[in-house]
Amino acid sequence: MCRCWYRPGLTALIGGVEWIGKLAWLPPQDIVDELMNADLARTVMERIEALGQISEEPDRLTRTFCSPAMRRANDLVGSWMRAAGMDVREDAIGNLIGHYPAANPKSAREPGAKVLLLGSHLDTVRNAGKFDGALGVLVAIACVQRLFQNQIRLPFAIEVLGFADEEGVRYHSTYLGSKVLAGTFDPEDLKITDAEGVTMAQAIRSFGGHPGALASAKLERRHLLGYLEVHIEQGSVLEEKKFSVGAVSAIAGQTRTRVRFLGRAGHAATVPMNRRRDALCAAAQFVLAVENHARRSAGLVATVGEIAALPGSSNVIPGEVNLSVDVRHSDDATRAAACARLRDHAKDIGKARSVDVKWHVIHKTRSVACDRGLSEMLNQLVKRHQRESIFLPSGAGHDAAAMAALTPVAMLFVRCKGGISHHPGESVRVGDVRVAIAVMEDFLQTLARCDA
Amino acid sequence: MCRCWYRPGLTALIGGVEWIGKLAWLPPQDIVDELMNADLARTVMERIEALGQISEEPDRLTRTFCSPAMRRANDLVGSWMRAAGMDVREDAIGNLIGHYPAANPKSAREPGAKVLLLGSHLDTVRNAGKFDGALGVLVAIACVQRLFQNQIRLPFAIEVLGFADEEGVRYHSTYLGSKVLAGTFDPEDLKITDAEGVTMAQAIRSFGGHPGALASAKLERRHLLGYLEVHIEQGSVLEEKKFSVGAVSAIAGQTRTRVRFLGRAGHAATVPMNRRRDALCAAAQFVLAVENHARRSAGLVATVGEIAALPGSSNVIPGEVNLSVDVRHSDDATRAAACARLRDHAKDIGKARSVDVKWHVIHKTRSVACDRGLSEMLNQLVKRHQRESIFLPSGAGHDAAAMAALTPVAMLFVRCKGGISHHPGESVRVGDVRVAIAVMEDFLQTLARCDA
Repeated sequence: MCRCWYRPGLTALIGGVEWIGKLAWLPPQDIVDELMNADLARTVMERIEALGQISEEPDRLTRTFCSPAMRRANDLVGSWMRAAGMDVREDAIGNLIGHYPAANPKSAREPGAKVLLLGSHLDTVRNAGKFDGALGVLVAIACVQRLFQNQIRLPFAIEVLGFADEEGVRYHSTYLGSKVLAGTFDPEDLKITDAEGVTMAQAIRSFGGHPGALASAKLERRHLLGYLEVHIEQGSVLEEKKFSVGAVSAIAGQTRTRVRFLGRAGHAATVPMNRRRDALCAAAQFVLAVENHARRSAGLVATVGEIAALPGSSNVIPGEVNLSVDVRHSDDATRAAACARLRDHAKDIGKARSVDVKWHVIHKTRSVACDRGLSEMLNQLVKRHQRESIFLPSGAGHDAAAMAALTPVAMLFVRCKGGISHHPGESVRVGDVRVAIAVMEDFLQTLARCDA
Repeated sequence: MCRCWYRPGLTALIGGVEWIGKLAWLPPQDIVDELMNADLARTVMERIEALGQISEEPDRLTRTFCSPAMRRANDLVGSWMRAAGMDVREDAIGNLIGHYPAANPKSAREPGAKVLLLGSHLDTVRNAGKFDGALGVLVAIACVQRLFQNQIRLPFAIEVLGFADEEGVRYHSTYLGSKVLAGTFDPEDLKITDAEGVTMAQAIRSFGGHPGALASAKLERRHLLGYLEVHIEQGSVLEEKKFSVGAVSAIAGQTRTRVRFLGRAGHAATVPMNRRRDALCAAAQFVLAVENHARRSAGLVATVGEIAALPGSSNVIPGEVNLSVDVRHSDDATRAAACARLRDHAKDIGKARSVDVKWHVIHKTRSVACDRGLSEMLNQLVKRHQRESIFLPSGAGHDAAAMAALTPVAMLFVRCKGGISHHPGESVRVGDVRVAIAVMEDFLQTLARCDA
C-alpha cells in the first residue's frame, strides 16, 4: 500500500538537504509535483479506503467515540504515523497524537521548539462517508511522511492530531477531542450517558483513557504556532467554481431554535375556512419566511429541517406544529439580527392568525474567524496550484472552531462531489488531494521560513 | 331516570286521542312544549350520560364495531326502545332496530303500512364525545316514547335505527351499518382484518350477527317513506348564528389525496440557499395555496392535516415531504375542479423549485343531496321554534349519506359548543335538545298529515 515511502530515486533527489532551523534549499515545485505528489495522494486515497472499512456496523461506516472501531482506527492510523517518523501517543480522552520532532532539539522533547498542529477527527457519523475527518488526518500524515523520507526537519515540531470525537454521535456532544486539548472541556459532561447507559467517564476508561486527567491533557498555548485542518467542503462552492481547494475565512456561528405554533384543532369537514386557527398554515408561512429571509441576506443559511403537525390526521385541522430552525452565518451580529427578525416574523404571523407562537433557542455557537495571517498565507499558496483562489466560509462546525480557543487556526477545504457529505456518497478526486498535499507542504515550508 | 314516561296528568291530557290513519287532534303546541319537552330533553341528556359510560377503554369513551361495549350499548338502548313501545331486533350486522307499529295494522307486521326511518349510529371514535351518533338515536326514541305514552299511532310505522358502525375505527371502513340496510355493503369487506387480525366476518359472528345474511338485511325501498337523522353539527355555524338547530342541505363529497414532494437533502450548514431543492419549502408553498384556494371558493374546505419531512433532522435540508390534502364541497363538480387546480398548482411549485411532485388520490366520495321535499319541510318546522332558519351543508359524512342510496333522507343539525366533536369536550345544551325533539315531533305530525 505505502509504496512511495522509501522510493530510492526520490529520496536521493532531495534527501541530502539539511534543515538547520531554516529552509536552505527547495527542489523546484514542478519536480515535486510531477514525481511525488501523485503517489502520496494515491497513498492517502488507499488509506481512506482502508480506514473506511473500520466500522462498528457491518454494512455501513459508523465509528463513534471510544468504540472498539475507534480503537482499531487509532491503531491503524498510529502505525502510519510511526512509519512517517512520528512518536505516537494517545492523550487522556483518546485523541491520537503523532509527534514529529523539530530540527536541532535542545532536549529529548525539544521544549524550546514551537509546535505546529495539523489534523482533523477520526470519528464519523452513522452511515458516514469515508472522507469527512479522515482526509485531514491522512493529508497531514502524508506531508510529515515526505519530510521524514527526505530526512527533513523543520525549525518547529509537528503534531498530527486524530481527534477522538467531533461528530458527537454517541453523547450528542460537540468537539470532545479538540475541547480537551484546548482546555474547554466541561468535566460535568463525564456524567452524560449514551443510549446504553454508559457514562462518558466509563467509555473513556474502557477505551484506555483517563477521565480524571483530562484537564492536564490541555496543550500549552505558548508552545504553539497554530493549527491547520484540511477538510472536505461539504458544500458545492468549489465544485461550482471548478477549484480543487480553498482557504476558509471563518466557521459560521449557529443558532438552533424550536418554534411551536399553537392554533386550534378541528374537524377538517366542518370548520369553515374563515373560522380556522390552523397551526400548519401559520407554520408554512413561517417556513417560507425563513427561506425568503436567508435568500435575501448574503452568506446566511437558514433551514427548517424538522416539522411535526398534531394531532396528525388527514381529517383534522392541525392544532399544533413544532419545527426546528437552523440559522448560520460567519458574522455573529448578522446571525443574531436574522434570528430576531425571524422571531418577529413568526409572532406577526401568529398574531394575524390567532395562533400562539413559542420561540425556544436550543443551542447557540459563536462564529470563529480563522487567523488572518495564516489564512492569507494559505490563500496565497493556493494560487500557486490553481488559477484562482477564493475564501470560503464554513457553514458546518469543525475541530478548528474549538482549537481557536487555544491557538490561531486555518482551514483548507477540498472539493467534494455534489457537496455530498455525511453520506456514503462522499467522494473526492485524487487530483484534489494532490493539490491539498502540495498546499500543506508549501504551508510548512513558508512557515519554516517565517519561523526561522 | 325515565320519570316522564307515565306521568298520569300528561297521559290524561292527551291520552284519549285515537289515531286512525290520520292526525285527528293535536294538543296546543305551547302546552306540549311547556309541560313535556323539558322533561324528555332531560331524559335524553341523562341517557347520553349513561350511554357515555359504556366504553371498551377505562378512562375514555371508545365504542367500536362489534365490541363487547357495543353489545352492552345495544342492550341498554334496546331496553329504552322497548320502554317506548317498540319491538326490538338486531339485524345481521348488529344494527339495533326498534319498530313502532303504524295505526290500524293490516297484519301482524302491517305489510301495507309504510315505514319512516329515524336514527343515527351507536359506535364512536377513540376518545370520543358522548353526543356524536348517540344524540340522533336517543332523540328518535324520545319522540316515539311520547307517541307511545300518549297511545298515539301514526299512519306509518317508525323504525329507530342504532347503526353498528359509522366511524369505521375498527376496520377503517365507512358506514358499515347503513350500507347493509341500503344494500351497498361490499361482501369482500368481510375479509378485512382488524389490528388483532380478526376478520370482519369473525367479529360479526362473535357479536351474534350473521355475515352470510347481510344481503338479505337490505330494507325494501318500496316500504319506506324516508330517513331522518338528528346529529350534532360538529361545526360552529349554528353557534355563530345563535340557532339551536338547522336543516342540512347536502352532505359534502370528499377527495383525500397524498402528495409527495421530492427535492434533494443536503447539509443545512453548507448548501447555499440558491443551490437548494428544499422539499419542505415547496410543501409549505402548497399548504398556503390549499388554504388560499379554499378561502376564495365559497363552501369549499381544504385541509392539510398530516405532514412529514424526511430525513427529519434539524441540520439537514428536507429531501422529501409527504402530506395529506382533504378537500370537501357539497357540489361534486366544484370539488373536482378545486382538486385539479390544486394539482396544477403543486406541479407549478415543483417545476419552479426543481422538486418532483407525486399526486395520489386515496379516497373519493360523491356529495349526497338531502331530499328537497323532506328538507324544506324540516326547515319550515325549524322556523316554528327559532326566530330564523338556515340550511347548512354537512362537511362530515353521516349514515344519511349511505341511506340516500335507499330512500329520501333529511338531517337536522343540533348546535354543539365551539363546534368541538370527536373529543370528550363535545357539549350540547338541553334547550337545544328540546328544540330538536320538538322539530322531529312536528316532522312526524306533518308527515302523518301528508301520508294520511
